[in-house]
Amino acid sequence: MPPPVRVTFSSGDAGAYRIESMRTLAGDPLAQATHLGVSEGVWQTHDNAVWSLRGVSGHVRYVERAEKQRLAAVTPPLGRPEATLAALIPIRKNEAWWNLAQDERRAILEAQSQHIAIGMRYLPAIARRLSHSRELGEPFDFLTWFEYAPEHTGHFEELLQTLRASAEWTFVDREVDIRLRRL
Amino acid sequence: MPPPVRVTFSSGDAGAYRIESMRTLAGDPLAQATHLGVSEGVWQTHDNAVWSLRGVSGHVRYVERAEKQRLAAVTPPLGRPEATLAALIPIRKNEAWWNLAQDERRAILEAQSQHIAIGMRYLPAIARRLSHSRELGEPFDFLTWFEYAPEHTGHFEELLQTLRASAEWTFVDREVDIRLRRL
Repeated sequence: MPPPVRVTFSSGDAGAYRIESMRTLAGDPLAQATHLGVSEGVWQTHDNAVWSLRGVSGHVRYVERAEKQRLAAVTPPLGRPEATLAALIPIRKNEAWWNLAQDERRAILEAQSQHIAIGMRYLPAIARRLSHSRELGEPFDFLTWFEYAPEHTGHFEELLQTLRASAEWTFVDREVDIRLRRL
Repeated sequence: MPPPVRVTFSSGDAGAYRIESMRTLAGDPLAQATHLGVSEGVWQTHDNAVWSLRGVSGHVRYVERAEKQRLAAVTPPLGRPEATLAALIPIRKNEAWWNLAQDERRAILEAQSQHIAIGMRYLPAIARRLSHSRELGEPFDFLTWFEYAPEHTGHFEELLQTLRASAEWTFVDREVDIRLRRL
């Protein structure tokens, strides 16, 4: 499927993933649910959904040419059989972030926070996909998605801890961390 | 209205603007219509619309801090009484553009094509607003909108001619130029 690719994450009492935990780190929580479904290529609301989050993954916003090439060399596909754990972490950034110019956002994201470099350190173990939501009128700006094998759980915690301690994260005003197990 | 701001351009046999001409510069044309309406803050399809184009204006994608400050100082509001002429120019760029990294797109847009500098040269005479459409699943990537007084028609032609001769425009694979007069 060529980009931009639509995706809908829907929670409820059925879905391909069991929700193991939901933790609110900033802002309002999402309602509790037991299962999560992921629909690719569509924006849809399921009748029985507790909540649905829609996003779209398109072109890169901050990644530069050399980084893009390094990322392409080590980025795994989604859906690897051994990657039975997943996480959906919807994030919203504040108005101060969105009012910055492109070079200011890039400087905070990479020069100050090493966001791209940190993510690369955990490739190919932790597969990622970023979907954008802000301009769709959704409650979050980004829907970040991760897939990894159980033996990389420690690495995943380390990745999140490092990003959350960065300058970039001072702009995050809503974040919910949803851990999942594939059924 | 704080960004992101939704906008719908709908053509038909009624609307706040009379369509004076429609010219296809690249790709498929849009169906002929006599009037255009602009709805701010909503995505909607009018029952009698010949076509509707939806977009959203959000944060800047390429503009750097110094440029943002200079633009803020000279950018006029939309809706000036004397700006009775307008143009809607929907544009699509090809896959080669969207596959580029951020620094490559910025280099083509500004270092090679002076897109931001050229636009600034015609401020405050020619007011502009850029809406993004690509990730909404729309037929165009951008909906560019211009408003100017009749005495600046020559400047407007010059602005378009300069941009269309730039390296950036080699990536444009669909473009329709719709000229409008406010009723």
